[in-house]
Amino acid sequence: MTTERIPCAIVGASGYIGQHFVRLLADHPDFDLRDLVGGDRSDGRTLSDLWQLAEAPPEEFEGERVRRRSPAALQRAGVRVVFSGLPSGTAGTFESELVRRGVSVFSNASDHRGDPRVPLLVPEVNADHLRLLPAAAGRGVLVTNPNCSATGLALALAPVERLLRPRSVHVATYQALSGAGYPGIPSLAIADNVVPYIRSEEEKLAAETQRILGTVRDRRVRPKRFPLVVQCARVATREGHLEAVSVEAGARPTEASLAAAWREFDPLRRDRLPTAPHPPIVLRTEPDRPQPLRDRWAGSPARARGMAAVVGRVRWEPPYLRFFVLSHNAVRGGAGGSVLNAELVRARGLLPSVEGAR
Amino acid sequence: MTTERIPCAIVGASGYIGQHFVRLLADHPDFDLRDLVGGDRSDGRTLSDLWQLAEAPPEEFEGERVRRRSPAALQRAGVRVVFSGLPSGTAGTFESELVRRGVSVFSNASDHRGDPRVPLLVPEVNADHLRLLPAAAGRGVLVTNPNCSATGLALALAPVERLLRPRSVHVATYQALSGAGYPGIPSLAIADNVVPYIRSEEEKLAAETQRILGTVRDRRVRPKRFPLVVQCARVATREGHLEAVSVEAGARPTEASLAAAWREFDPLRRDRLPTAPHPPIVLRTEPDRPQPLRDRWAGSPARARGMAAVVGRVRWEPPYLRFFVLSHNAVRGGAGGSVLNAELVRARGLLPSVEGAR
Amino acid sequence: MTTERIPCAIVGASGYIGQHFVRLLADHPDFDLRDLVGGDRSDGRTLSDLWQLAEAPPEEFEGERVRRRSPAALQRAGVRVVFSGLPSGTAGTFESELVRRGVSVFSNASDHRGDPRVPLLVPEVNADHLRLLPAAAGRGVLVTNPNCSATGLALALAPVERLLRPRSVHVATYQALSGAGYPGIPSLAIADNVVPYIRSEEEKLAAETQRILGTVRDRRVRPKRFPLVVQCARVATREGHLEAVSVEAGARPTEASLAAAWREFDPLRRDRLPTAPHPPIVLRTEPDRPQPLRDRWAGSPARARGMAAVVGRVRWEPPYLRFFVLSHNAVRGGAGGSVLNAELVRARGLLPSVEGAR
Amino acid sequence: MTTERIPCAIVGASGYIGQHFVRLLADHPDFDLRDLVGGDRSDGRTLSDLWQLAEAPPEEFEGERVRRRSPAALQRAGVRVVFSGLPSGTAGTFESELVRRGVSVFSNASDHRGDPRVPLLVPEVNADHLRLLPAAAGRGVLVTNPNCSATGLALALAPVERLLRPRSVHVATYQALSGAGYPGIPSLAIADNVVPYIRSEEEKLAAETQRILGTVRDRRVRPKRFPLVVQCARVATREGHLEAVSVEAGARPTEASLAAAWREFDPLRRDRLPTAPHPPIVLRTEPDRPQPLRDRWAGSPARARGMAAVVGRVRWEPPYLRFFVLSHNAVRGGAGGSVLNAELVRARGLLPSVEGAR
Repeated sequence: MTTERIPCAIVGASGYIGQHFVRLLADHPDFDLRDLVGGDRSDGRTLSDLWQLAEAPPEEFEGERVRRRSPAALQRAGVRVVFSGLPSGTAGTFESELVRRGVSVFSNASDHRGDPRVPLLVPEVNADHLRLLPAAAGRGVLVTNPNCSATGLALALAPVERLLRPRSVHVATYQALSGAGYPGIPSLAIADNVVPYIRSEEEKLAAETQRILGTVRDRRVRPKRFPLVVQCARVATREGHLEAVSVEAGARPTEASLAAAWREFDPLRRDRLPTAPHPPIVLRTEPDRPQPLRDRWAGSPARARGMAAVVGRVRWEPPYLRFFVLSHNAVRGGAGGSVLNAELVRARGLLPSVEGAR
Repeated sequence: MTTERIPCAIVGASGYIGQHFVRLLADHPDFDLRDLVGGDRSDGRTLSDLWQLAEAPPEEFEGERVRRRSPAALQRAGVRVVFSGLPSGTAGTFESELVRRGVSVFSNASDHRGDPRVPLLVPEVNADHLRLLPAAAGRGVLVTNPNCSATGLALALAPVERLLRPRSVHVATYQALSGAGYPGIPSLAIADNVVPYIRSEEEKLAAETQRILGTVRDRRVRPKRFPLVVQCARVATREGHLEAVSVEAGARPTEASLAAAWREFDPLRRDRLPTAPHPPIVLRTEPDRPQPLRDRWAGSPARARGMAAVVGRVRWEPPYLRFFVLSHNAVRGGAGGSVLNAELVRARGLLPSVEGAR
Repeated sequence: MTTERIPCAIVGASGYIGQHFVRLLADHPDFDLRDLVGGDRSDGRTLSDLWQLAEAPPEEFEGERVRRRSPAALQRAGVRVVFSGLPSGTAGTFESELVRRGVSVFSNASDHRGDPRVPLLVPEVNADHLRLLPAAAGRGVLVTNPNCSATGLALALAPVERLLRPRSVHVATYQALSGAGYPGIPSLAIADNVVPYIRSEEEKLAAETQRILGTVRDRRVRPKRFPLVVQCARVATREGHLEAVSVEAGARPTEASLAAAWREFDPLRRDRLPTAPHPPIVLRTEPDRPQPLRDRWAGSPARARGMAAVVGRVRWEPPYLRFFVLSHNAVRGGAGGSVLNAELVRARGLLPSVEGAR
Repeated sequence: MTTERIPCAIVGASGYIGQHFVRLLADHPDFDLRDLVGGDRSDGRTLSDLWQLAEAPPEEFEGERVRRRSPAALQRAGVRVVFSGLPSGTAGTFESELVRRGVSVFSNASDHRGDPRVPLLVPEVNADHLRLLPAAAGRGVLVTNPNCSATGLALALAPVERLLRPRSVHVATYQALSGAGYPGIPSLAIADNVVPYIRSEEEKLAAETQRILGTVRDRRVRPKRFPLVVQCARVATREGHLEAVSVEAGARPTEASLAAAWREFDPLRRDRLPTAPHPPIVLRTEPDRPQPLRDRWAGSPARARGMAAVVGRVRWEPPYLRFFVLSHNAVRGGAGGSVLNAELVRARGLLPSVEGAR
């Protein structure tokens, strides 16, 4: 029954993305948060003690302890869905083991993003990539959300890409501190500074965006092939990745048609996904927006705060289109992305039940 | 005689660029700083009282008072060279009047940058643009330095532009607070934020860079014609403009030849200009440089600190070349640029004497 | 009838405190926000255009225009209560004129704070100071909230002052940027810096705290007389004033009794004031709290976010008590303080009606 | 002979204080820097690769490799003086072993600060504490510099303490990021924040200041006994610890005598110590100084930059004296403090030679 909340757990709950998962799942209509799973260093500590976000932890979980739990233990406890904020590198085997045991995983880690059968999902952009999911009895599904900087870019390009037929897309990023997790960037490395380097980020941003915008044929993704020329830099903002995008277009749409394409883009308008922002793209016309401070929490209804991408400062001087896009790296580009993915998979009836659970 | 120091004054001495002029001219071998000229609000106040830079004011000028002075008064006082840190908008007529009176002006203001007879000068790049100077008896010369973000870009592109034959150049900037002068950006506007808008900056950066890289024919500049697709943003650093540059090249030089072009670029190596950095471009090979905090003061010898442009994070995947360039906006891209311009004009014997001056 | 919402306006609505007033009054159960009044520079501009806070403006007021309005016009429009975020200096006569016309004023400005008949009110601390209000037919009442740094200190001292019998209180502050309003502190003045000076702040913090903690006799306040030795500094945080307090005590309460005094302090617990936080003081026991980033929005229920003072890092080594207190300068120490004052005055039935109004 | 430079090494050379040692010793007239000693993680890496300071590394050491070296190896290499930037905890045994082998140690670590025979030295304040040094043949001397926040406070109090006869001293600190070394404070912990807690700092600041101001009798220090009521907080500045000091005085000197005491304080004026600032205390009279950004590098001559303490915002309302003091935590309160200690010990002829060395 759709009205029953699905037992879920968060793994990597002590980390920055994990804490955003807690915030988003504390009172979720679809999912019932049962377990906060951490590693050796956090085992036994309360969420309140570990908390790093500026927003206070949800009251009902403040005193909750983070615990080490194996995939087997989670299965036995009747957990049907796991949200993974595990660090890339350690996520891979843990997540695979869960899937093998019939538990579905919605992951923010990069370990499985390259797997051709694992959808790299931005629901508004490539819901059809869910066709990649193998139909294997007894196994959970595994869906990943993209890199925090790729999500915003994919959302911004999706509505206008057919109109523009890009010959090349040049992107420079202004990425927030929280993109590196906690403890992340030392304050002495970034105070009064910009660091023009984030390891592997440029490669991920290019490859993942091309894949998300790609099409599925024969259960494989054919990535979109335009060149994506990317430069990534870290700036001293807390949350919200800003990207300067300049497109060399192969077509000449009117400026009005571009604006309309962004404004009217809302492919999930009829699905009733609790965390889906409507509209998913907020187009601003002031000369100086989007800004991380002011626009990071864009998105309505209330549950979708931080889930909208904000596009602004659009200038179209054919063949060059310039704009900025901002999205909340830890919400839209992190925990919130995976929560939305889970909502979509559940709504589409693709969530397998766990054999022998409860 | 070349060993005689030329009497000079600073107008707009109370501003941020004006103060950098004071720092650079306090003990200059070519110029003898005689007058600090300010506007109504600063009239009569001591430099120490007005000082805004992190570096202490030069001891010998700390107690000096900024005074209102007319062009006529400066001429009468025997001032032969004026360095102008006046705000754009008010600089124009004041500077013109000085020139009419035989006083030469080296200006950081944008008012005369569009004038076809006024060189927009980066000595290492377009010293030959000095041919634009009209030979008019009794008049001073007027030379401008470019916008703070254009200087670094022009320096970085100059050595490699012929090798690359750019089809387009895409630039996104990370510009420091001091680019807006003092008081400039309110702290509440920029703390924990990036502002993707600086008025007129994108237009200036594009047009000025094309002009600096242009060639002079028939006493007119033919700007370089490649498209410059620019997006400017303000970040919360104090000094040092960083720029992410991505070039679509029309040629395929080797990576080694690009590196050599940057490293060996030093067209002023034989001029003995006190403020000229050798080399003018510092090419760094660490993965995470240049950074505003660490590289803003690049440049040797000591007098040329803050005058070098630092290029790094070079990636050449034909046809796309990516790199970052950093230059100190208030030194290389401001006061230091004009001081170097004055040194060049003097060294080339183009500085007219002031009639009737002491 | 208590269920009728009282027509109100905000004057100084375009400023930083004014915008917090809008946020707090947009859907207030007691007050019906009818007018946003601004000065010459903001006249005719929309709230959205003027907005400076990180939080988005309330949707229903985004498009609202700020207008110049005279006290007479506000009276004619049936406004019964005015919330004043006017700058000190210009607030005085405007507020007096409103009061003369029967409109009640709840003000964040300092102009009337020295007037012996004007309560300087922190409802949990000195609600009895409302006895100062003159009973004059046809006039509005005028109530001020204290300086942003005095509110937190008064709240923190009130519950423990009788237990401690202070011989002296030493305070050093860490005050946020927004305490200076917008544009306020230039970014170049405060980035990578602390400024140990805020004009008149130390005098206000001392005098106002002593007055708030004072007792009313013969319709006059007798300020509390212990020495308050204050040093104020500005740090680069956006919101939330932190204060280091060290008390030399004349008595020796137990540590437990001090903690209990803070925890149990809730004199408004039975009033049903919508913006009152319960408890008004949050006592934290972690070693490293309160912090501006994490604690500025303390206060429940939801409408009282930012209204609680957070006390922490308490160390009692008789005769010296040390602690830190944090309160949101623009909410508890600004707009929220005045809204709470208005709620109290209304609940106590002290709000006069406007003659001749609708 | 005094003209011979003494072979020295830096241990803990890869850390933040270690790097300031390199900067200060690169071309020192008394000491000849021979070895950069690091731990496992830095072994074999170049200084340039490890460098964290905003200032560039000294050119002649940029390519130098940090190496693991035992005390025995340093002794064999003829090193006579070691400057220790080792982390507290690991410094103790390493330093003791060096001393046993006849090598003298000037240490920034806290491990030996409690030892009654080890001077905790601020040369201008307690040079006479050198009498604590045991005269033991064949052993090196061991001298420590105090905690970074204690140095500035001790300097500021020393000249006025006899005039004031303090009954109590209340101090609140605004400490810079670099006080925690590198990587130190995570950026997410401190951006837009103040943290009112630094482990053990308050205890150290109080106890060390009392000890430095104490007197030596029978080869033991009798600490000064006034209560020091301290609260320490971390703010987001890079370098320079600011302290708000308020003294309850037992005497009533004139304001002029206090100012004169600070201005005329220069007990080392006749010693010729290269790193000693003259005067050691800069008294500023502007209303808004000292500031970390503007005053951290106070101190002349050039070699003594960052070695002066800056006192300002003095207000004397008997019995309460308030002022702020700033000193560079990593220079005066760190590496520079130890270098000055070494210069003093050498000048006083207290530096033993290393047996069997060269």
